[in-house]
Amino acid sequence: MRYVMVVQYDGTHFSGFQRQGKGERTVQGVLEETALKIFGEPVRVTGSGRTDAGVHAAGQVCHFDVRTEIPAEKLRECFNRLLPPDLKALSSAEAPEGFDCSRSAKRKTYCYRAYFSEAPRPLLGRYAARLQKRPDPAAMKEAASRLEGEHDFAAFSSAGSSAKTTIRRLYAVEISDETKNGYTMYEIRVTGNGFLYNMVRILAGEIFAVGCGKSADGIPKAFESGSRTLVAKTMPACGLTLESVDYGPDVFPAKEV
Amino acid sequence: MRYVMVVQYDGTHFSGFQRQGKGERTVQGVLEETALKIFGEPVRVTGSGRTDAGVHAAGQVCHFDVRTEIPAEKLRECFNRLLPPDLKALSSAEAPEGFDCSRSAKRKTYCYRAYFSEAPRPLLGRYAARLQKRPDPAAMKEAASRLEGEHDFAAFSSAGSSAKTTIRRLYAVEISDETKNGYTMYEIRVTGNGFLYNMVRILAGEIFAVGCGKSADGIPKAFESGSRTLVAKTMPACGLTLESVDYGPDVFPAKEV
Repeated sequence: MRYVMVVQYDGTHFSGFQRQGKGERTVQGVLEETALKIFGEPVRVTGSGRTDAGVHAAGQVCHFDVRTEIPAEKLRECFNRLLPPDLKALSSAEAPEGFDCSRSAKRKTYCYRAYFSEAPRPLLGRYAARLQKRPDPAAMKEAASRLEGEHDFAAFSSAGSSAKTTIRRLYAVEISDETKNGYTMYEIRVTGNGFLYNMVRILAGEIFAVGCGKSADGIPKAFESGSRTLVAKTMPACGLTLESVDYGPDVFPAKEV
Repeated sequence: MRYVMVVQYDGTHFSGFQRQGKGERTVQGVLEETALKIFGEPVRVTGSGRTDAGVHAAGQVCHFDVRTEIPAEKLRECFNRLLPPDLKALSSAEAPEGFDCSRSAKRKTYCYRAYFSEAPRPLLGRYAARLQKRPDPAAMKEAASRLEGEHDFAAFSSAGSSAKTTIRRLYAVEISDETKNGYTMYEIRVTGNGFLYNMVRILAGEIFAVGCGKSADGIPKAFESGSRTLVAKTMPACGLTLESVDYGPDVFPAKEV
C-alpha cells in the first residue's frame, strides 16, 4: 500500500530534503529512520522534490510504500511521536491509485521572504533574508510580470541541474510588502509547474535587484541568452519556504495544511 | 555618559536576560562581554527588566555608563559587528538626563502567542506555544476584560518574586485570532505598568483556560484570595515576547523599533 504524508519542517538544521552521505542530517534521512522504527523494516520515503539546505517547507508532500496494520490516518501520530521538533507530519492518508508525489505534482508554490531594516532583526532572521537596500514594490511588480508565463529559465538556474528542459511555466508571481515597527517585510509568492535548481532564490534576487534600480529589460534578455551572468545573485536559503504542492482535484483533493 | 540601547533577541538559546553563574548564556552577559571588547573596560549593562529563559524581546531597552569617543548613534553598529545573530541592537542614543531604563519605564507591552492545530507545526513552534484544545475567542475576551484595570495580581505570580507590592495596573489586554492554512494563531497583547514574576505567562494560561470552558468568575476570586492554585498553569516561555517599553514622551521620545 502507498501512503501520502504532508510534512512541515524548519530547514535551518537540515542539509536539505534529499538523503546524502553519513553525518548529513536530511529530511528524507530523518523520515526514513523514523519509518524504520515504526514499521521495523527499511522504507524508502520519496519527496515531491528536493529542497536545498536551509530551505523550509510549510507543506512538503512525500509518499512511501509499506504493509502495515496501522490505519492510514493514524500514521501521522506514529511519526510525530518519534520525529524531532523541527520536522512534523501534518496529515497522512492512503495514496490514490497511481499516485506519485513527485510525478503527479501539477504545481508548486514557494514564498521568498526578505526584510529591510536599518539593523538586523533576530526575530525575523530565521525565516527571512535581510536586504541591504530598500526596494521599490512597484518596480518589483514590474519584474514579476515579466517573469510570469512560459519561458526558458536557463539563466535563472545554478549549474548542477539535471533537468531535461529548462522551460517552465510560472502561473503567478505575486509581490506583497508590509511595513510595521520600523521594518518592511517583502514576500514574493511564486506558483509554477516546476522549478530548476536554485530557481526561486535566483528569481527573488532578480526581483529585488529590479526593485533597487536594475532595469527589468534584463529579464527578456536573460530568457533569450540563457546567460546566468545577466541575472542577480542567488538569495540566501533561509528566506525560502515551499508552501504547497498541488496535485489537481482529480488526483488528490487539495487539503488545507 | 549614559547611553540607551534598544535590543532585539530570540530568547530560545538564552537563559534569560539577567547575568548568572558561569556557563549560563544570558543577554546581559553577552552584552557586557561585547561592551568589554568595544570599550576595553568592564561595563555594567542594565535592562528595563528581566526576561525569563526562552522569552523573546522585540524591543528590550537597556542602558550603560561609559566614557567613549564613539558617537552615540554609531554604538549600535559597533555592537552589531560583534553580537551573535540571535541578539542585535536596533538603536543607540545618549540617555536623557536622569534616565534609568528600569526605573523610568512607564509601561511595558508583552505579546503571548499560541496556536491551535491538529498537528504540531515546526514553523510556528519557535515563537508560539501549541494549544491542545481550540479556545473560544469570545470567552477569552471576557477573561481579558476581567483582568484589565488595577488589581492585586498575587495569584498570578510564581513564587520567588521579590516585589514589594503585588498590585499592578493593566491598561489593555487585547485578544486577536487569525485562522489560515489549517491552524489558528491567538495573540494576547498586554500593556501594564509592571509585571510580577511569570505574570504574563500565567495570565495567558488563565485566558486560554477560560477560552476552553473555565468560568471567568474565577478571576475576581483569584484577585481576592491571592491563591495561585485558583489560576491556570504557567504557559511555555517560547510564546512570550517583550514587545516594547514605553517611557512617556517627556523622558524618552517613543521610537519605532
